[in-house]
Amino acid sequence: MNKTIVYGVDVQFGDCDPAGIVFFPNYSRWMNAATDHFFHACGLPPWRDIQQLPGCVGGPLLEIHTRFHASVTYGERIEIHSCVEEWRGKIFRMQHRIMRGQDLICEGRETRALCVRGASGKLKAVPIPDFIRVACA
Amino acid sequence: MNKTIVYGVDVQFGDCDPAGIVFFPNYSRWMNAATDHFFHACGLPPWRDIQQLPGCVGGPLLEIHTRFHASVTYGERIEIHSCVEEWRGKIFRMQHRIMRGQDLICEGRETRALCVRGASGKLKAVPIPDFIRVACA
Amino acid sequence: MNKTIVYGVDVQFGDCDPAGIVFFPNYSRWMNAATDHFFHACGLPPWRDIQQLPGCVGGPLLEIHTRFHASVTYGERIEIHSCVEEWRGKIFRMQHRIMRGQDLICEGRETRALCVRGASGKLKAVPIPDFIRVACA
Amino acid sequence: MNKTIVYGVDVQFGDCDPAGIVFFPNYSRWMNAATDHFFHACGLPPWRDIQQLPGCVGGPLLEIHTRFHASVTYGERIEIHSCVEEWRGKIFRMQHRIMRGQDLICEGRETRALCVRGASGKLKAVPIPDFIRVACA
Repeated sequence: MNKTIVYGVDVQFGDCDPAGIVFFPNYSRWMNAATDHFFHACGLPPWRDIQQLPGCVGGPLLEIHTRFHASVTYGERIEIHSCVEEWRGKIFRMQHRIMRGQDLICEGRETRALCVRGASGKLKAVPIPDFIRVACA
Repeated sequence: MNKTIVYGVDVQFGDCDPAGIVFFPNYSRWMNAATDHFFHACGLPPWRDIQQLPGCVGGPLLEIHTRFHASVTYGERIEIHSCVEEWRGKIFRMQHRIMRGQDLICEGRETRALCVRGASGKLKAVPIPDFIRVACA
Repeated sequence: MNKTIVYGVDVQFGDCDPAGIVFFPNYSRWMNAATDHFFHACGLPPWRDIQQLPGCVGGPLLEIHTRFHASVTYGERIEIHSCVEEWRGKIFRMQHRIMRGQDLICEGRETRALCVRGASGKLKAVPIPDFIRVACA
Repeated sequence: MNKTIVYGVDVQFGDCDPAGIVFFPNYSRWMNAATDHFFHACGLPPWRDIQQLPGCVGGPLLEIHTRFHASVTYGERIEIHSCVEEWRGKIFRMQHRIMRGQDLICEGRETRALCVRGASGKLKAVPIPDFIRVACA
């Protein structure tokens, strides 16, 4: 079982669309916040500090995939259960399960790489250092 | 001293702009959430229920005014201290003071009316009922 | 070759994050706008009118999948090339290719169903009517 | 009469709230884009380049003030008419009038300063250079 961290969101009126339910790009926004929250809870520094390391760029997103199972409206609270589902060489995949109480609202996956800026100025993915994998285990 | 309710926000990476600070329309978004939170904490129903009352439309915004004193970045927590600053016939004014610890980050005012939909279909402001003023006092 | 409609976006400062590039949930927001623009360009009515039809709910999102190939910053213009990639019984899949000039920035897919509200109040997917498929062909 | 530049926005479904009208912080977002568009149309460089100048920080916002006169929904087009209403030493005030055809939807003012970063690292407002005032006249 992977280490799982929970991030809570109180859904606001302005997060909802004319159908009265959460406008879905907000789920991506919250999952991104949940990823930051996860790494912070694991003791890793914020992006601000990571990019101070020589050449380091952080963990840009390669791919997202989200399945929507039920809708949520304002006044409700959701909880995002996040873990690293897979480490694979230079990339890793976050899994987010958004729950409202016992109901699964949506499931999302984010595939990210750890990148540095090469001599040419182009981004280059590098193997995930062990200290990061250990911190998140 | 008016009843004051505090609403907290953990500022996220995605709330910030290329200058690395909160993109200011987010403050309006959070102050709107703080207004909803204020009325909820005072025991009043959400907008969803208010609009079920015959002809009732809620409290549309007439005017906002915000002064920015300092900037905030991601990873920081702010607290919005909200109260009704004035009731004046058919309108009321919310005051929001956004604090980071002891620092005043910005001050906002929202002027709102309580509206119903008249026979012609047009919005019409109505006097704020006593039960609302009492709940918020 | 499926009918393809192009929707343009001028990327703004406030669409970008502290890395100086588009904050990715905005791509989902723009792809959703491109879907609406696609159906409008095909002569179909806006959601406002669709939901007036008895029991009709519109085309809720079941799933999104996006691959990010390159980043975009403010001051740049992107174009979203959208088509219906597949009709399959009660669901359909939109494909969006976001281009900056000749560069493919990201590719997104949205899977949607056409739903009505059943007697019990629950949503129920229904076969896509022929007039919609014809309009989009 | 001050130089006025028009910036157009097609209002999207996702810009609207459960009341079916534009969620008001979006007006601040669009007015900020209209300010950037105004300076760009006057031949001034984007913020990205401005901040390369030694010590220069750009034009941070001191204050906003917006009056809402009518609501707008998705599928409608609005136009933002922007000008510099006043230059006053180290600050300037943008005026934005948001129109839907002949209807005034809202009026906004943004007060901004031109800032540099002083030796101590603190922001310091400086007099607006003549070349900027000339470009915008």
